Amino acid sequence: MHRTKVRIVEDALDANNTIAQANRADFDRAGVTVVNFMSAPGAGKTSLLERVVGDVPQVRVGVLEGDVQGSMDAERLAGLHVPVTQLNTDPSFGGECHLDANMVRSALPELPLQEIDMLVIENVGNLVCPAEFKVGEDVRVMVSSVTEGEDKPLKYPLMFRTCDLVLVNKIDLLPHLDYDLDRFLYNVDQVNPAAERLLVSARTGAGIDAWRDWLSDVAARSREGAIA
Amino acid sequence: MHRTKVRIVEDALDANNTIAQANRADFDRAGVTVVNFMSAPGAGKTSLLERVVGDVPQVRVGVLEGDVQGSMDAERLAGLHVPVTQLNTDPSFGGECHLDANMVRSALPELPLQEIDMLVIENVGNLVCPAEFKVGEDVRVMVSSVTEGEDKPLKYPLMFRTCDLVLVNKIDLLPHLDYDLDRFLYNVDQVNPAAERLLVSARTGAGIDAWRDWLSDVAARSREGAIA
Repeated sequence: MHRTKVRIVEDALDANNTIAQANRADFDRAGVTVVNFMSAPGAGKTSLLERVVGDVPQVRVGVLEGDVQGSMDAERLAGLHVPVTQLNTDPSFGGECHLDANMVRSALPELPLQEIDMLVIENVGNLVCPAEFKVGEDVRVMVSSVTEGEDKPLKYPLMFRTCDLVLVNKIDLLPHLDYDLDRFLYNVDQVNPAAERLLVSARTGAGIDAWRDWLSDVAARSREGAIA
Repeated sequence: MHRTKVRIVEDALDANNTIAQANRADFDRAGVTVVNFMSAPGAGKTSLLERVVGDVPQVRVGVLEGDVQGSMDAERLAGLHVPVTQLNTDPSFGGECHLDANMVRSALPELPLQEIDMLVIENVGNLVCPAEFKVGEDVRVMVSSVTEGEDKPLKYPLMFRTCDLVLVNKIDLLPHLDYDLDRFLYNVDQVNPAAERLLVSARTGAGIDAWRDWLSDVAARSREGAIA
């Protein structure tokens, strides 16, 4: 029973990877760099996008907004005059807790790939399943808010292990928290020493220039074919 | 394709409900009231349990600790001299993002049901799938931290719709946030006007007496058979 379940999961992930590769090939052909953007609920993904998507130098950014229900985040971003496409995961009872490659594939015809250089896919707020499903991305970025505690890399290791950049958000709240930033960064090292890290605050703007530069640099490296 | 997937999900949830009813019957026979305790990662579930599990009046509390990996939270709680049982969900690639009735059933032989009056099941940190899977609980409690934003009831409606109590945690941070508490409570009303709400801070102890009293009252009502 147990082995059967594991095999079903492995088969599903294999099938997902095949579709993710097809997505990636389509994005490459269109010259679009893709960022899979993930975090727990309320960590600040949309706020961090609002800060940068309109003005990454020489990079036209579009957003694919994944949510269980509703389009509140998409409406926030649409006000910034960037192309935003909504993808809801709620056909089943409580909705899917992650985007998968097939969901992103179903959204491809809606995406204005000729008008953008970079697509940021804002995943469903969740630290578990989104990490398991590739969607065709070049890079993975996750947000970890300092209000979530230092232990999260150890409790949700796959998410931290598979990301290229950790945005440590809400650093304006550090003076008001019992949060040990060094301990958090040490915990990131335990699961993914190669992960880049940026300390940011969507509220105050701290670190936002570095976040914007990081996206610009990823787009440049992708154009040069320097991202595997 | 799409209809087939929905049917598979419905079948899985039906099978889960059957096992959840068996769990509930076993808990009832043992005279144990069960709380399914849920939230996003880092909202403060374990801290809120640390504050109360050792001293709910006339209620011996045990904890079943659900995590993808590790036993850090269980170790924190074990220091309070209450029975704690660890349940990890990681046999598959990234681990399951929720507890289901069968996982809880597999832990039943490990639970000291004769030594406790209440079992708190701390679910995996996630606002989507834990809401879909009954595990045999009498009541559902969720934690929503004020750092997560006011929009969460509208973005994760099933979680808010199916809970009996919302603990609004980290209220000590309110002076430092752009968070509209009235708007959050209004949003809770939109999806679940019957949900009780308590404003708490695990850090300062604000509202903790009311939280402890709530658990005591649930145990009393359960003993009287007043919970459906």
